[in-house]
Order: sequence, then C-alpha cells, then structure tokens
Amino acid sequence: MTETTHIAPASDVPMAPSDRTRVRRVAENARYDAATLYAIVDAAYVCHLAFADEKGTHCIPMACWREGEHLYIHASNGSRLMKHLCKGTQVCITITHIDGLVLARSAFNHSMNYRSAMVYGQFERVESDAAKRASLEAFMDKLAVGRQAEIRAGNDKEYAATTVLRIALTEAACKVREGGAVDDADDMGSTAWVGVLPIASQRLAPQPDPLCTAPTPQYVQDWAGA
Amino acid sequence: MTETTHIAPASDVPMAPSDRTRVRRVAENARYDAATLYAIVDAAYVCHLAFADEKGTHCIPMACWREGEHLYIHASNGSRLMKHLCKGTQVCITITHIDGLVLARSAFNHSMNYRSAMVYGQFERVESDAAKRASLEAFMDKLAVGRQAEIRAGNDKEYAATTVLRIALTEAACKVREGGAVDDADDMGSTAWVGVLPIASQRLAPQPDPLCTAPTPQYVQDWAGA
Repeated sequence: MTETTHIAPASDVPMAPSDRTRVRRVAENARYDAATLYAIVDAAYVCHLAFADEKGTHCIPMACWREGEHLYIHASNGSRLMKHLCKGTQVCITITHIDGLVLARSAFNHSMNYRSAMVYGQFERVESDAAKRASLEAFMDKLAVGRQAEIRAGNDKEYAATTVLRIALTEAACKVREGGAVDDADDMGSTAWVGVLPIASQRLAPQPDPLCTAPTPQYVQDWAGA
Repeated sequence: MTETTHIAPASDVPMAPSDRTRVRRVAENARYDAATLYAIVDAAYVCHLAFADEKGTHCIPMACWREGEHLYIHASNGSRLMKHLCKGTQVCITITHIDGLVLARSAFNHSMNYRSAMVYGQFERVESDAAKRASLEAFMDKLAVGRQAEIRAGNDKEYAATTVLRIALTEAACKVREGGAVDDADDMGSTAWVGVLPIASQRLAPQPDPLCTAPTPQYVQDWAGA
C-alpha cells in the first residue's frame, strides 16, 4: 500500500517535463524538482482541477493532500465529477500561492511573487478499503496531527459512500517568482517607491463551537502561532 | 467604453445560472447574486483559468481584475495562451478563498469554510488602444490606488506588445461555506474539541528595494494594516 506510506519528499525523484509542462514564458522561473513541487502541494488545502466533459471545460476547487508521490482528492461516490474522473479523464491540477505584489519603477515591470504547480495526468481510484481508510486518515493528519484519534472515526457506511482518487506527481512543473522588482536600466532614476508588498496565508485565533466543552488540544493552541 | 468604467457592484444584475453553473452538491451553499461574485473576484489577485486545446485540458493561474461586469486578464501578444483564447475558446475561470478548517465531532463532518466563484464563457479582446490603456491602469489601481501617477507609464511599444482580454461575469455561480461544524445528532456527546481554525490572507510589512530612496507613500504605509 504505497499510497498510505508517509515518505519524506524524495528530491531525487525526477519529474518528467513533457511538451505541455515545459515552461516557455519567463522560463528562468521554472522548477522541475520534486522538493519544490511537494512543498507547494503541502502548503495547499485546495487545488484547482481542470477537466473537460460533454458540457465543456471545467475548473473545480477540491480539497487535496499528498502522500508520497501522489496527490489525493476525495468526494461522494454520487458526485458526477468523481464518476467522470474514474473513467481516466485527462486532468490538469494547479495550485498557486501568492506571496506578494512587486511594485516596479515602470508599469510594465510590476509583477507578483508566487509559487505555482501544475500537474497533468489521470486519476486512479484507491480501490482497497484499507488503503482508502488510511488515505482519509492521512488527510485528517494534514488538517491536524492527532485529531483522528479524538473524533468519531468514519463508519462502514461513510467509507463506502466515499471515493478516494489519486494522481501521480510525475508530469508536473512548478513556477516560482521571488525577490524584488526587475526594472529597465533607463528607469533606474525613477523617484517612485519600489519594493514588495508581501502577502501570506495567516492562521487566526481558533473559534471554538459554543457547545464545545473539551480542553483545547495542543494543535489548536498552536494554530495561530504556527 | 464600458470596459473602462468603474461602476459600483450592481447587485441587481442577475446572473444566468445555466445547466453547468447550477450547484448540485450542498446546493444550499450556492450563491447566484452579483454582489457575492464581485466580492470574491475583487478579493483575488489571481484566478485559475481552464481551457482545452489540442494538447489537452489546462489550468493556468492568471492575474485578474474586475471592471464592472467583466473580469480582465492580460499577457504578452506572443503568449500561446492568449492567441488561443482570442479564438473564442470556451473557458472556465475559478477563484477560491479558503477561510478556515472546520473541525467536527466525526471525521466525515470535517469541512472547510471557503468562498469560490466559477465563471463560464469566452474571452473577448479589448480592441481599442484607449480601452486597453484604461484597463491596464485599472489593474494598477487594484494593486495600489494612485500608483499609476508615480511610475513610468507604459510606452507605445509596451502597450502594443500586450493583449488584454475580458470575459462577462454572467454565466457564473458562487459557493460559500461559513460557520461552524454541522454534526450528526448521534455524535453530539463527543468529547473532541469542535470549532473552526480560521485562515486569512495577511498583508505583511512592505519590503523596500535596497535602491529605493523615495518616501513611503500612503498606500505602502497602509498595506500591512489593511
């Protein structure tokens, strides 16, 4: 059950940049190493999943998590999306983190700092009940390590109603822009403010349910400080 | 030049939920009003753009901004993406903001709070030079109101090398989840911590360029406090 094993990011696993994952625009920002890809995936709770069916091309936000060299999603068996993806539909999954606005000396050199990852491929269903359960527990671990043991675990009916899919993180490419403004030589005399306005994902103070009487677990205490 | 007019969100503009924008899953979270859609778009610096071509289905992160009832993107004329979109390719654009992790009493009632918007349609090119310039200035306004006047504006060559596209915000749907955990009646005796771990986009302290000698403008001073 390789899909349930938490392995360290394997930086030596080569991605396979294909024609469609070879970055052409600002190619110096391209990254094709697994460590970069895994870090971008692990920092995300949601990916954007593009696929086409008889009604057109769609882009759906989906909760996601990574185990080893695969990205996972889950949904109800009844979901039209899951039924369609189980047919081996080609998909493109993209995750983007915005890190800041880059204010340059000229309008056209304004930019953004970001980390993005694109993955092409096809999903495969996690078939065995044991593997499915282990994967959904891994997702819970992503939300809060240790939480699975405190809550009512899924019952047979709930697991049976859930489809878990995974896609190999192989045909993939990342793009990362960081650092300050890059201006034209002729603009260096500008008197405008130049720099980066950083943006980050912030964890705010936990909001306990009004009916919650439980002591605050460590992962909740640590949330806003993390 | 309606595309260059900054109008207030027209909450009375009806969206046209089509078959593909009618939300089926957790339909009570669906929103079809323009005010919700515009707020989700305006809170985003980037959208995810899905389209298909002869190489497959793609999902590309693109900087975006809104003017009135349209969403705008821009890129170099030479971009394969822009050339393809100019042919009237059907696209789906999705924007998602994650607002928190919802920790429930059972594994299967865990959820996320979020605001997402999906828009279907086709891009149209902003043709006139004046409209294109005004739109790119509106984008600069989104980054920082007042900045356009301080920097070296685009020159003829830069404008000529840039394509600006817009798409009507009409065939669209939003989905919003907010609030606490919704648990099964049988699980209400749980002793687990229950509540929301909120997530927000945070603006961090501005990072001036080492060569910047300009006084700090008000929009930079206000950045991290906004």
